[in-house]
Amino acid sequence: MNIAVIGLGLIGGSLLRALAGAGHQVLGFDADPAVRATARDAAARLPARARWQVTGTIRDAAAEADLVVLAVPLTALHQVLDALVSSGFHGLLTDVTSVKGPVREAVALRLSRAANPVVGYVGGHPMAGRETSGFASSDPALFTGCAWVLCLDNGVSLDDWLTLATLFTELGARVVPATTEEHDRAVASVSHVPHLVANALAACAADDLLALTLAAGSFRDGTRVAATRPELVGAMCGGNADAVREALDELRERLDQAAKALDQRDPVRAVREWVAEGHAARRAWPPDPGRPERVPAQADTLLRLGRAGGWITTVAPDRRTVTGFLPVRTV
Amino acid sequence: MNIAVIGLGLIGGSLLRALAGAGHQVLGFDADPAVRATARDAAARLPARARWQVTGTIRDAAAEADLVVLAVPLTALHQVLDALVSSGFHGLLTDVTSVKGPVREAVALRLSRAANPVVGYVGGHPMAGRETSGFASSDPALFTGCAWVLCLDNGVSLDDWLTLATLFTELGARVVPATTEEHDRAVASVSHVPHLVANALAACAADDLLALTLAAGSFRDGTRVAATRPELVGAMCGGNADAVREALDELRERLDQAAKALDQRDPVRAVREWVAEGHAARRAWPPDPGRPERVPAQADTLLRLGRAGGWITTVAPDRRTVTGFLPVRTV
Repeated sequence: MNIAVIGLGLIGGSLLRALAGAGHQVLGFDADPAVRATARDAAARLPARARWQVTGTIRDAAAEADLVVLAVPLTALHQVLDALVSSGFHGLLTDVTSVKGPVREAVALRLSRAANPVVGYVGGHPMAGRETSGFASSDPALFTGCAWVLCLDNGVSLDDWLTLATLFTELGARVVPATTEEHDRAVASVSHVPHLVANALAACAADDLLALTLAAGSFRDGTRVAATRPELVGAMCGGNADAVREALDELRERLDQAAKALDQRDPVRAVREWVAEGHAARRAWPPDPGRPERVPAQADTLLRLGRAGGWITTVAPDRRTVTGFLPVRTV
Repeated sequence: MNIAVIGLGLIGGSLLRALAGAGHQVLGFDADPAVRATARDAAARLPARARWQVTGTIRDAAAEADLVVLAVPLTALHQVLDALVSSGFHGLLTDVTSVKGPVREAVALRLSRAANPVVGYVGGHPMAGRETSGFASSDPALFTGCAWVLCLDNGVSLDDWLTLATLFTELGARVVPATTEEHDRAVASVSHVPHLVANALAACAADDLLALTLAAGSFRDGTRVAATRPELVGAMCGGNADAVREALDELRERLDQAAKALDQRDPVRAVREWVAEGHAARRAWPPDPGRPERVPAQADTLLRLGRAGGWITTVAPDRRTVTGFLPVRTV
């Protein structure tokens, strides 16, 4: 497959490496000339069959591609989409952005204007973030075992979806079918709100020097993602504001209950009872993957699998079935 | 020094190992006969000079000790103190409990009733928790580099304090002078509230199977300490309810501001600005330790050092000075 990767940061760079390593013809582009030079140098050190090429423009990368993967931040997306549309690209498009609603809207807006409409768009999101970023941190094994959401909204071609599911499962990812709304709600709760909370915890201790010296494991881990660049946190939380607001409200209600537990006459007992639910949930995570099952490659079946916490690991060559896992709940 | 360690869980067991390894005469006791047997077996596998002994009663462990270290949970403390008082022990007493106010009160109450009053009590707290517990997880190196608060309240003998500071710095700990109130306020912010938040985050995702499958690094780290046993979280947060309530209120206010940022017309920008403070605080942590300084071993000097985020690493043999570090702030 001829694949163009636009944006060569942590995710784009890792994808460039992984796809080239899997035998695809891969072209990469990054807006930063220094990143392009680094990516070119890295390719030159590889055996010829595992090399990628780096182009000087989006047009050169995308014009002949079967698939374009957008791996740029949400803030750069509109500009890159404009360049893509004017390049004459008319293949399959996906992205790796951490919020899916705004990308779907931006793509729909551009496609309606394009002279050569993109054949298909399937929103994607590999859950493979790290607190480090940039091509220097990229790693072809980044996607091994990682959950990779592919959005299967109404109107998305199942064939396009299965093309991407095949490609990413072959890189070792666990492909999770979900709608755009389901994705954005889920990541608000398990990724975006945890980022806000980490920041709030770190800010609370900022001026207490004794506390910062006493801070140990619970502070270190609870605030780790506060080291993420503020632009990224702003883009992902602000770009998913409605779902994040809702998930944050649920967290705030739970913390209101914690405050009430502390006010009880027997706060030791009240707090112990209050923490039981979160304790059980954390002990049951990550879920036991269960046994592999073969299920029909149909949109409703796939979405049901995703809603139940499942994922797929292979697409059958005839594309009629997929092999999926449905985790076993232990609570 | 003849030292008795009462309670042989993670902290008590590690202390037993570390103190015996440092050449002290160490006796251990645990209420659980199975733990006593395990601790005896572990000692038998060591060279004679590094062995500890395990006794069948608190009395046998404490009666002749110069120092007793209480390493039992807050819930067991009253009972152990009663046994200690009736054993005739009259040496120096310390503990490793994660909340210092209630222990100080419990000790004061017992001492006023005792026929043979304990000579001195200095509250202590090594910041060396792990999510694992029990003697099986104990490790003589647990205290290397760990911040170990020793409470230097009004009425505490500086000589007793320096005895313990010498002992624990010799195990590699960074001894932090603080008052009981300062300690309880600081740990509320960097340990107890992070535990509550981890539980709330885990509970919010408990019923969303898709979210649990998408949960990756930020969820894993942000909820890690929710795996701590609910009894321990109840005891430490409930036992420090006033300070935890205050620290939790500060966090809730910050999350109210996060909710407001999400409601702005430009939530991307508003969230980015809101996270800046926590981001800077986390990037500056842990603080650069600075250079060693020799300071007078006086209560007010030591407490000032602790309030400024400092710690001590050695006590001079004449006990007139200590070597301390005062971290350099980078923000």
